[in-house]
Amino acid sequence: MTDNKFRIIHEDNQTQARVGKLRTAHGIVNTPIFMPVGTRGTVKTCTPRDLVELGAEIILGNAYHLYLRPGPQIVQQAGGLHKFMAWKKPILTDSGGFQVFSLGPLRKITEEGVEFRSEIDGSKHFISPERSIEIQNTLGADIIMTFDECPPQPSDYEYIQKSMEMTLRWASRCKKAHRNRNQQLFGIVQGGMEKALRKASAEGTVEIGFPGYAIGGMSVGEAKDRMYETLAYVAPSLPKDKPRYLMGVGTPEDLVYGVSCGVDMFDCVMPTRNARNGSLFTTVGGIKIRNAKYKTDFTPLDPNCVCYTCENFTRAYLRHLYVENEILAHRLHTLHNLHFYLSLMRGVQRSIQAGTFSSLKADIGALMQLGQKRDTD
Amino acid sequence: MTDNKFRIIHEDNQTQARVGKLRTAHGIVNTPIFMPVGTRGTVKTCTPRDLVELGAEIILGNAYHLYLRPGPQIVQQAGGLHKFMAWKKPILTDSGGFQVFSLGPLRKITEEGVEFRSEIDGSKHFISPERSIEIQNTLGADIIMTFDECPPQPSDYEYIQKSMEMTLRWASRCKKAHRNRNQQLFGIVQGGMEKALRKASAEGTVEIGFPGYAIGGMSVGEAKDRMYETLAYVAPSLPKDKPRYLMGVGTPEDLVYGVSCGVDMFDCVMPTRNARNGSLFTTVGGIKIRNAKYKTDFTPLDPNCVCYTCENFTRAYLRHLYVENEILAHRLHTLHNLHFYLSLMRGVQRSIQAGTFSSLKADIGALMQLGQKRDTD
Repeated sequence: MTDNKFRIIHEDNQTQARVGKLRTAHGIVNTPIFMPVGTRGTVKTCTPRDLVELGAEIILGNAYHLYLRPGPQIVQQAGGLHKFMAWKKPILTDSGGFQVFSLGPLRKITEEGVEFRSEIDGSKHFISPERSIEIQNTLGADIIMTFDECPPQPSDYEYIQKSMEMTLRWASRCKKAHRNRNQQLFGIVQGGMEKALRKASAEGTVEIGFPGYAIGGMSVGEAKDRMYETLAYVAPSLPKDKPRYLMGVGTPEDLVYGVSCGVDMFDCVMPTRNARNGSLFTTVGGIKIRNAKYKTDFTPLDPNCVCYTCENFTRAYLRHLYVENEILAHRLHTLHNLHFYLSLMRGVQRSIQAGTFSSLKADIGALMQLGQKRDTD
Repeated sequence: MTDNKFRIIHEDNQTQARVGKLRTAHGIVNTPIFMPVGTRGTVKTCTPRDLVELGAEIILGNAYHLYLRPGPQIVQQAGGLHKFMAWKKPILTDSGGFQVFSLGPLRKITEEGVEFRSEIDGSKHFISPERSIEIQNTLGADIIMTFDECPPQPSDYEYIQKSMEMTLRWASRCKKAHRNRNQQLFGIVQGGMEKALRKASAEGTVEIGFPGYAIGGMSVGEAKDRMYETLAYVAPSLPKDKPRYLMGVGTPEDLVYGVSCGVDMFDCVMPTRNARNGSLFTTVGGIKIRNAKYKTDFTPLDPNCVCYTCENFTRAYLRHLYVENEILAHRLHTLHNLHFYLSLMRGVQRSIQAGTFSSLKADIGALMQLGQKRDTD
């Protein structure tokens, strides 16, 4: 297909992992990729310059949050989300399905769409699949998502089935409503942890036809082994020549596992949210910076890391900032955690190309060392 | 005097303003200078890299806050305050006098020193002039301050006199206790808004002899005209060949006025604190970013500014971040406000050298335009 924006440039021969390039209106994204989450038009604490320096190639925005504030009209008047937030590289917006359904008693779902009250001011809103696409067309991200229902876990089989079937009908409506040809609209596979429903959802979504496919509903607190099992089943069933995006997942280990199942794109609030809670990812294990033992620890956060935080500051200083509730703590921690995730994915890409991915898979440390290279090359 | 670390390189011939160079253990400081406040070992939201890029040449730390947390021993083990916070340029630490006296009922003053309870955990502490110097010697800033009493306003004449006289005795004790010859110990002139007491304080402090002189007690909520009058009286009475430092003051207009009285150094929390409250300094007037009219204002914060914030973002975006309580708002606002103050002082330096200071004095906008040049030269 000449129109295919996704090109696989290397496949692992022991797992489903692959290295690819995804073409978008704002440039190429190298996969497998981690996408930092910038829900409200900012990756919390970071400037666009920080993100470029960290090697971020694509970031997330959220249509639901940006719809409520500042509103799509304001983003449009600003010249689109890229201009509004001064980010020149690709953006993916989530449709807001997940967020709307998380509102619980504040929302009412019908075939037509979802009625809900704003968490901010109690005002009434209605988002249909068509409206979600219209909002996302207005925001102007490079990749936009269908409006799906993400059923809570646990839900009974029947509910998951009905929800999945409605999500399929909504996916058709989204595709029909999509107006901006500079944006790629990705479909979302649902179906809970039920293989039969995931299969039906995948087949139905592929039949509608999208330039990329997401796997939703995997970050809803399900037991990890069931999630892994479902992922191993669903991901490879999606078209090989299209990018696959695992939504809202997860730990570094989850990302590596996802890659081994053939996933190309990931997003998760974990690195940024944990950073603000003083919970840091390092090649020598997790660090809770508040811990008293770091009070006099004058070593870097991660001895193997080349990020700005690790090159300049000690654990003792970071702990001091964190205990004092200094904004700089949140910022330096965010830089580090994002660097960890982004380096990890660079290491993953390199190892796939070097044919060492499956042997490195169990060893995050070795993958990280590969990933750090980018900064010192 | 061969030992003089301060060199005047240009004097205004209409006012007391002068341009100078102050030599410190961590490099030269060009005066008149504004010193960003980094109370707890960080200029809030800023990395050292940000500060260097803004053109900051010296920053403040506070002995009182750093004594309570993380404690001088930890800073010492880190290799001193510069290493602890990864700032390679000069630092000035305030002695903590002002902060201790602000504790009100939590402290008890005697000739020996001040006993107080920590705001953090209620623990008991005692700081004498000797202990303050010991703490500051340990922290290792380039310029340190005598331990003074800063009487509240209003206080009666007798109280101010007694306090000022004790501050003189404390200044002698500080000088005697000072051990680190890499650090310059500055004396502090007190005396409230009473000319006679200010005169006695200045004479007494100069008699003890310091490489620089500060004017304290001017940021205690006194009416501006009395403050200006006192400043115009005190500043020129201090030795011309030594740097003069006006503590904790003030607005951009206050700084320009201070320079005209012969002041060389300033610090104030205003640019950084106001930034976090969404109150911005611009060449087109003050801006409260929360104001609804900025919702659709797609112009830069300050049309004449070349800071990172103004070069990349609109008022509408900054307002959005601020309303969402995003950390990035605080950071971008801080960058801008500090840039405003630092550019202003660069403009002041240039105008003194160009002989246009007194004509530009009333026109902050023109001074700012001079100051912006640094970034585009």
